Amino acid sequence: MRIALCGGTGDIGEALALRWAYDTDHEILIGSRDPERARGKAEEYVTELDSRGVEADVKGFANEMAADRADVVVVAVPAYHLVDTVEAIGDRLDPDTVLVTPAVGMKRDDSGLHYNPPSAGSVAALCADAAPDDVSVVGAFHNLAAGRFADLDAEVEWDTLVFGDDADAKDIVTLLADEIEGLRPLDAGGLANAGEVEALTPLLINVAMHNEGMNDLGVRFQ
Amino acid sequence: MRIALCGGTGDIGEALALRWAYDTDHEILIGSRDPERARGKAEEYVTELDSRGVEADVKGFANEMAADRADVVVVAVPAYHLVDTVEAIGDRLDPDTVLVTPAVGMKRDDSGLHYNPPSAGSVAALCADAAPDDVSVVGAFHNLAAGRFADLDAEVEWDTLVFGDDADAKDIVTLLADEIEGLRPLDAGGLANAGEVEALTPLLINVAMHNEGMNDLGVRFQ
Repeated sequence: MRIALCGGTGDIGEALALRWAYDTDHEILIGSRDPERARGKAEEYVTELDSRGVEADVKGFANEMAADRADVVVVAVPAYHLVDTVEAIGDRLDPDTVLVTPAVGMKRDDSGLHYNPPSAGSVAALCADAAPDDVSVVGAFHNLAAGRFADLDAEVEWDTLVFGDDADAKDIVTLLADEIEGLRPLDAGGLANAGEVEALTPLLINVAMHNEGMNDLGVRFQ
Repeated sequence: MRIALCGGTGDIGEALALRWAYDTDHEILIGSRDPERARGKAEEYVTELDSRGVEADVKGFANEMAADRADVVVVAVPAYHLVDTVEAIGDRLDPDTVLVTPAVGMKRDDSGLHYNPPSAGSVAALCADAAPDDVSVVGAFHNLAAGRFADLDAEVEWDTLVFGDDADAKDIVTLLADEIEGLRPLDAGGLANAGEVEALTPLLINVAMHNEGMNDLGVRFQ
């Protein structure tokens, strides 16, 4: 399968690129607004994987080009760049492309981080509003500490919550998540359930902030 | 220590009463609007614990009386009864009483359950607004599946998030949570962080609803 990571030069994009390249045979397309930057990062990832004996298929492109070629497009950009990015790649998406949003809107105060949903109700709803009507949007990969996740030496035992209104699209993303070692996909229902999933990310950061020795957290439902 | 469970005849109240009575020597006061009901439930709990060889100190009272006698008061009522209950017991609380809120406001739609904060911003903020100014409010015990938690045969490995603005009051609740086997208290910061903690409860219910074989969930941060 071809997976585009638009914003694949950022930390969650890097983590997903490295993990999929390490654990699977999927073709990974790193997207960026700046194709030179995407190519540079793709080379970094290939070098990192090569040092671990893995010959990875990771290439860099402009976001539009990456999205055009992919079966699954992860919009791995901060929430405030999400609409711009989705609109930029919108006409490159086929009706059978699956658009994945891991983005969370947060604000900070003295106590910590807080969920800051857009007026659409959730970041995933914002993504769906910005995407072409015939493209299925799936939420996943929100609650993963990107720095630790990007370190292939770090063993994780984390759940990721997958939600969306198109069951087939959700199944594809669930399989892709399941292929990453240490990651367990769980079904969180439809897009209307996005808010509770997105709100978990600031909680993870708050818990890491307030508890000594707990850093770069994920979560396990049990 | 004397712990009052106002609303201790409900499911989370029952769970906390049984667990504390089983795992500690604290004196447990079951509170209800109806003292007869409180006494009946307290007897049930004593019988249950006796069948396990534990001689427990659990008695039933009207909410006001239970609160009056306690060092720590858990307001274990649904969110929509919270203000009524806190106002009813308010003048029985000393400045050194710790008031604990495990309540979450939720609404249901076709997709599942959703966090439904009151205009105060969170249920914990609502509790603090309703409580006397000199009483410290701590949030804890939100994200525990009450039915499973009330079953002393069920082994759990769950985290509970403790938050509040009074460090000493938080320490007391943290110690009480830590005394329950299988429960790990984590510091989630101040009252301003309540929303993200409360929003985790509908997510746990949604995940249980959408994943076969997953029921009565708690969560572990790792």
